[in-house]
Amino acid sequence: MRDFLPADKARRERVLAIIRERYRAHGFDEIETPVMEEHARLHAGIGGDNEKLAYNVLKRGLDAAAVRAAADDPDAPVDVAALTDLGLRYDLTVPLARFYASHRGALPTVFRAIQIAPVWRAERPQKGRYRQFVQCDIDIIGDASARAEAELVVATLDTLDALGLDGGTVRINDRRALDFMLDSFGFRADERPGVLITIDKLDKIGPDGVVSELTERAATPSAVDAFRAFLLRPQTLEYRPYGEGQIRKALPDGAPADIVAHLVGIGEAVTAATGSAEVPLVFDPFLVRGMGYYTGTIFELAHPSVDYSLGGGGRYDGMVGRFLGQDAPAVGFSIGFERIVDLVEEQADAASSAVVLVHDRDVPAAELLALKATLVAEGSRVRLEHRTKNLKGLLERAAADGYTAFATVTTGATRTSLEIKPLS
Amino acid sequence: MRDFLPADKARRERVLAIIRERYRAHGFDEIETPVMEEHARLHAGIGGDNEKLAYNVLKRGLDAAAVRAAADDPDAPVDVAALTDLGLRYDLTVPLARFYASHRGALPTVFRAIQIAPVWRAERPQKGRYRQFVQCDIDIIGDASARAEAELVVATLDTLDALGLDGGTVRINDRRALDFMLDSFGFRADERPGVLITIDKLDKIGPDGVVSELTERAATPSAVDAFRAFLLRPQTLEYRPYGEGQIRKALPDGAPADIVAHLVGIGEAVTAATGSAEVPLVFDPFLVRGMGYYTGTIFELAHPSVDYSLGGGGRYDGMVGRFLGQDAPAVGFSIGFERIVDLVEEQADAASSAVVLVHDRDVPAAELLALKATLVAEGSRVRLEHRTKNLKGLLERAAADGYTAFATVTTGATRTSLEIKPLS
Repeated sequence: MRDFLPADKARRERVLAIIRERYRAHGFDEIETPVMEEHARLHAGIGGDNEKLAYNVLKRGLDAAAVRAAADDPDAPVDVAALTDLGLRYDLTVPLARFYASHRGALPTVFRAIQIAPVWRAERPQKGRYRQFVQCDIDIIGDASARAEAELVVATLDTLDALGLDGGTVRINDRRALDFMLDSFGFRADERPGVLITIDKLDKIGPDGVVSELTERAATPSAVDAFRAFLLRPQTLEYRPYGEGQIRKALPDGAPADIVAHLVGIGEAVTAATGSAEVPLVFDPFLVRGMGYYTGTIFELAHPSVDYSLGGGGRYDGMVGRFLGQDAPAVGFSIGFERIVDLVEEQADAASSAVVLVHDRDVPAAELLALKATLVAEGSRVRLEHRTKNLKGLLERAAADGYTAFATVTTGATRTSLEIKPLS
Repeated sequence: MRDFLPADKARRERVLAIIRERYRAHGFDEIETPVMEEHARLHAGIGGDNEKLAYNVLKRGLDAAAVRAAADDPDAPVDVAALTDLGLRYDLTVPLARFYASHRGALPTVFRAIQIAPVWRAERPQKGRYRQFVQCDIDIIGDASARAEAELVVATLDTLDALGLDGGTVRINDRRALDFMLDSFGFRADERPGVLITIDKLDKIGPDGVVSELTERAATPSAVDAFRAFLLRPQTLEYRPYGEGQIRKALPDGAPADIVAHLVGIGEAVTAATGSAEVPLVFDPFLVRGMGYYTGTIFELAHPSVDYSLGGGGRYDGMVGRFLGQDAPAVGFSIGFERIVDLVEEQADAASSAVVLVHDRDVPAAELLALKATLVAEGSRVRLEHRTKNLKGLLERAAADGYTAFATVTTGATRTSLEIKPLS
């Protein structure tokens, strides 16, 4: 968990304002849920591995007997659920499903949600992983068609453009296509979760690595052989251009028509919206994504400047039904804010001038505040600073905080006598 | 704890953007701290009654023996500190003091901080009290002079103006003036905390109510008599105009010159900055404010449209020293966001048009997304909606979400053929 100092915080807020504005332009509406959800809801088996990383909040007013009862058997694990009633959310998807179930009547038939908010996971400390981090999610609930995926992709890529990160692409697959593929090779249903974990490493360990790890897993040998032969086909890793021909070529023969049509439909709508010669989608039949709740399309956001994903998402048609009692199709796309924010080029506050008034200690407060008020009324941002011996250091820090000009103030100074010079 | 639906969330974000922008204009810099702080830090006796309302986070990986040890004695209270290591912050002042102590070297000599963020208190549910609510604080650390108070007051009133809430005033007092007053009546030091709690009710129960409650408290009878005589002086409740004469008149004779000078200095600097004929300050010798950490000036923000306070703050010179190991003067002013947000007049998104495209179900996704992309590129915010039988209801909901226009879309529609009509 981190503190953010002024320069970092200003940069984060600028990036968030752009993301929020672009998402809104694309017809998404922002909502907010409390950071704490009921413990039982966070641990309903929907959150996958993240459930284990949830911070649990101690019940208020527990007495000694209640605490002891939670640890009755010295050799058994503690009954955590007896000590806690609330927890910090570990993602924004479980809260969204709960929110939609609570407020459906007040929402549009097709609900396009923005959630820009922190989540918490009790991760082991490691580079680039934080225990509190911001997610920027857009979700569409109530639309089962490929149009929903296309709207998410278009809004996400437009947002990336607005941040100065042109040239993003979305890698795309469908969980049902993965299932079909594993079926066609002859993997048993009980082997699939493990096989998927291995396939997910294809980028890192390559086809040979995947085959040897599957062999170590003692997966059905004939299926591993079939998979190996498939992986080694010359066309397997040629992912472009996006379209029906390429999708069929990248899958084993006989891929179900509805899955292919859904993927093709996404491409057509994205092409129509972006008007670009080359659609910014890449079909990747080996894209897996970890979360168990995905039921259809899955995405990952890629950008040529980095070799890691900048976001991702997918379709989770089953989850809202868990809270609502009736099925509602849903699909979401999340931008990894903590990864994006470091890539965005620093831009000065273009809006207005920002002036540091460096004053002698003996200038009366009333004079200083009158000068400051005049400049604020003119549209400037104004910081007062006592003159110190290290004037250079003082001005450098102000520049780092986004100030663009300075003036020195002595007793009796007026707006007219003030000489404002650029900080540079 | 509440969910915020699109219209409410949009309103909250608009108000927060104005507050943030005004605070920044006045030379304050926003920072952010994690929502969780160490349990020991939250319970160091600085947070007053709020400490009891903190949500505690269960330690991860506790075993049965550790849990049982926290409740060893069935008749004693649970050793909560053994079960928890982190807690949710109950205010933004304790985290700021910790932040300043950690990062002082990277901050300006006089540090003007903005914090706009949620805090949590495990309050009993009651009207107008929330367990998660947003505070908007500005604080100045490193300036012991009256200029600091004046900068806070000017920035706060300017922000209120920018929100359309002109005519705010700040009630002001000094904890040291309260101490002097109670001393001069002859209350003993150990009586003071209780006496202050009673004086704090003056607005509600009036002078007679205060006197009878003090008598019930069995406070020193001669002191109660002296206080009664003081309260009943004709000039006691005449609070304006603000200035040295009125301040001296409102206090018992012999008020220390440095306290009076500090209060007068605030008024002079605020007058210079606002340039208004009547300074928007009211000296109230009976203003108390609950928090024990205040050491000097205390404020409350009042507005003629409501009979409750819209914010408040004060000087807490001792607190930063608790974390830093050396004293640093500090003063803060907090706007009660949850109270303000309901008073701000709803304003439509003036920035750009917002269009609902109502389409037949059979319009191809590619056509819809191309139309949407064209309008988004023109600067509109665009929502797609299937046409339903209840078109009126659909458009009303869109209007509530800030949409200003609509167009119906059939297959083959183009940007040129689109007829955009105002909603309303």
